[in-house]
Amino acid sequence: MRKILVIGSGKSTAFLLKYFLDKSSTENLFITVGDLNINNAKVLFKTYSNIEFITLDIFNEVEKTKAIKNSDIVVSMLPARFHIEVAKTCLTLNKNLVTASYVSSEMQSLDTEVKQQGLVFMNEIGVDPGIDHMSAMQVIDRIRDDGGEMILFESFTGGLVAPESDNNLWNYKFTWNPRNVVTAGQGGTAKFLQENTYKYIPYNRLFRRTEFLEIEGYGRFEVYANRDSLKYQSSYGLDHIQTLYRGTMRRVGFSRAWNIFVTLGMTDDSYIIEDSEYMSYRDFVNAFLPYSHTDSVELKLRHQLKIEQDDIVWDKLVELDIFNPNKRVDLKKATPAQILQKILMDSWTLAPNDKDMIVMYHKFGFEKDGEKYQIDANMVVIGENQTYTAMAKTVGLPVAIATLAILNGKITTPGVQIPVTKEIYEPVLKELQSYGIVFKEHNEPYLGYNPLNS
Amino acid sequence: MRKILVIGSGKSTAFLLKYFLDKSSTENLFITVGDLNINNAKVLFKTYSNIEFITLDIFNEVEKTKAIKNSDIVVSMLPARFHIEVAKTCLTLNKNLVTASYVSSEMQSLDTEVKQQGLVFMNEIGVDPGIDHMSAMQVIDRIRDDGGEMILFESFTGGLVAPESDNNLWNYKFTWNPRNVVTAGQGGTAKFLQENTYKYIPYNRLFRRTEFLEIEGYGRFEVYANRDSLKYQSSYGLDHIQTLYRGTMRRVGFSRAWNIFVTLGMTDDSYIIEDSEYMSYRDFVNAFLPYSHTDSVELKLRHQLKIEQDDIVWDKLVELDIFNPNKRVDLKKATPAQILQKILMDSWTLAPNDKDMIVMYHKFGFEKDGEKYQIDANMVVIGENQTYTAMAKTVGLPVAIATLAILNGKITTPGVQIPVTKEIYEPVLKELQSYGIVFKEHNEPYLGYNPLNS
Repeated sequence: MRKILVIGSGKSTAFLLKYFLDKSSTENLFITVGDLNINNAKVLFKTYSNIEFITLDIFNEVEKTKAIKNSDIVVSMLPARFHIEVAKTCLTLNKNLVTASYVSSEMQSLDTEVKQQGLVFMNEIGVDPGIDHMSAMQVIDRIRDDGGEMILFESFTGGLVAPESDNNLWNYKFTWNPRNVVTAGQGGTAKFLQENTYKYIPYNRLFRRTEFLEIEGYGRFEVYANRDSLKYQSSYGLDHIQTLYRGTMRRVGFSRAWNIFVTLGMTDDSYIIEDSEYMSYRDFVNAFLPYSHTDSVELKLRHQLKIEQDDIVWDKLVELDIFNPNKRVDLKKATPAQILQKILMDSWTLAPNDKDMIVMYHKFGFEKDGEKYQIDANMVVIGENQTYTAMAKTVGLPVAIATLAILNGKITTPGVQIPVTKEIYEPVLKELQSYGIVFKEHNEPYLGYNPLNS
Repeated sequence: MRKILVIGSGKSTAFLLKYFLDKSSTENLFITVGDLNINNAKVLFKTYSNIEFITLDIFNEVEKTKAIKNSDIVVSMLPARFHIEVAKTCLTLNKNLVTASYVSSEMQSLDTEVKQQGLVFMNEIGVDPGIDHMSAMQVIDRIRDDGGEMILFESFTGGLVAPESDNNLWNYKFTWNPRNVVTAGQGGTAKFLQENTYKYIPYNRLFRRTEFLEIEGYGRFEVYANRDSLKYQSSYGLDHIQTLYRGTMRRVGFSRAWNIFVTLGMTDDSYIIEDSEYMSYRDFVNAFLPYSHTDSVELKLRHQLKIEQDDIVWDKLVELDIFNPNKRVDLKKATPAQILQKILMDSWTLAPNDKDMIVMYHKFGFEKDGEKYQIDANMVVIGENQTYTAMAKTVGLPVAIATLAILNGKITTPGVQIPVTKEIYEPVLKELQSYGIVFKEHNEPYLGYNPLNS
């Protein structure tokens, strides 16, 4: 039996573990799942053999060393900041490692040693980052192999609610960490390239400079810019590209309404609101509006933000019940972002039968023989239920497929890496297709940002 | 001869040194001015006796110790972050110290030792902080002594251009550190108290939530909130006050136009603009606007910020020449704030004959015998020329007066302190009057923020 150690048993591991278990006989696999609390996973997979569950504290050196020593390959599904603790021990004990998280500078610093030992430390092989890297590089390499020169690359991902469960005015529910949604865009000014010009969008304009996309059968979406559009410029070999833009997808209209919270200051996570515990939702809104003895919170908000009374954004605010004077915040020493998150969770938590959806959209612009072309590619994955979510599927399956491929010696290039080479994306994307994770491509006239190109 | 050591000889020391020199015979004073570069002060005061100029590097322990040892009292006019180096040596050598800067936590930590040695370390005794503390506490103490209870305190200061030199559409020129003007308000959300309710204004709304003031003979001003309205709540004894608001004064209309720079992201000092050196002013503006092959920078800006073509803010932008494609930024690796500062300095630098102006405005609301009252007090100081500025006068004279009062044993209460007690404010404010630094008071009906009070 080949032994796979999966550390961490959170939400995104259902598909991952199921994949290994379904292949455990044919591939001769034994799975050990280690976590501080492994009850959820234990209940889910109690009928399976070839799997064991152990209590594992990665800060207990003895436990950690024992578990890793006893494995043939390690998958870390812990929160990103903990991977380095696992990685160091993998290096010591000569084990390959797979994670779905961004490469931290600490992780990157292990690269030389990892290469010297001939190990594969594969990272960013979930959905975003992960499937975005692989699906983009497959098309980019194909265009290049065919003699084309890339001039535009745009890439967008969204974690949304599935159309059949989409029943609020925001067309949004929390399908992943709500905190990241509330504080999205606050890491610093968004920077990207448009037609060879560097462009910058500050946080207060981020949700007002959206672009629109359409996916056949799923309607329209909007996109706001990620902070880090240029992050993979070199890894993708796009140093001379004219337009490079990465963003987050929402349903059209979300961002304009969300910008109300940004403008008022409700998404700030950097200071504590006085007396937050005893505030009503209405008091919270009022804290960001001028005092008035006569005017209502509603009118002050409308006036400050110039919201017409028949504007749909108003209905979106009302739907969230933010003007309710009787609902209490009930959070001690909370930041505005924490309070807003609580208010949103009242409305945006998935109901037991709700399904989630992952959407991804790439645009590839290129020049070949003096002509300009564009290929658009998109992927839509709908969750099965609240255990086998689209998020768990698109994060977990690429991790699982890559892990088995490494174990089977199909991915061998050593180093701390991300999946941007053919060796990795070809087998992984091919196998993902059999799970319904498929990109649809179509050709578009190349416009770039210049209508005169047409 | 009593020896006064003044460390630092920058812009704000002209009045300070002149004060000491004018009193040097009657008060038996000898002044030593020490700085890394003391040429300016040397030229200005070359005809005076009782003064010497020494090259002094406070990071040279021998030089610093010798100079301080040889003095009876020390005045530090260095940038705020350097005071602590002077303060430690003053403590060792048992010398009193005066600065015009905010009390840092390092400075505060010396308090116990300073008290044990019976020393006076007086800080925040310039204009703001300084004259604001003293003039406010004089009225607050008077109200209390008279049986009144404070219910509202608002305090505003502005460093502006004098009316006779006010010849641009912004009614503004740089009279102090331009960098602080460009980055004003970025330290964090503004927090204050209005009618017993905590209110918060995020940076993107700071310049849109102004209030208006009028000073007889000087017309209207506007005010935007400081970050730290509650900073002196306890020092002023205002723990139970209903409204507490501190702000910065500008001429009406400044803030609405300034908010354009904030909204576009041009005041950001946290990242470097690519290729800043070779950008034109126009390129700089365009970096914050969407790409378009057809639309002008002007139209894109108007459209993004919904600026009507007959709106005066547009003329303010044009006046700054920000759309000029031929003027080059010419700054290597510059932040947006650094580039904006350069553009503004083209227009807002004082001409040789321009004068500056300091304005201060306090509102005191109080209750007495069941009735509510309000006293407004304001101060206007106009500079004489570009050496004897209003800023140098209002910063330097309180420092000088306090220094002499400490030397003469009129201010004796030991400790690291700010001027909020009668022992300090009475003699200092009285003497400031003879230099034309006077507050005019008038009674107003108390309205607070509630028109129904009237």
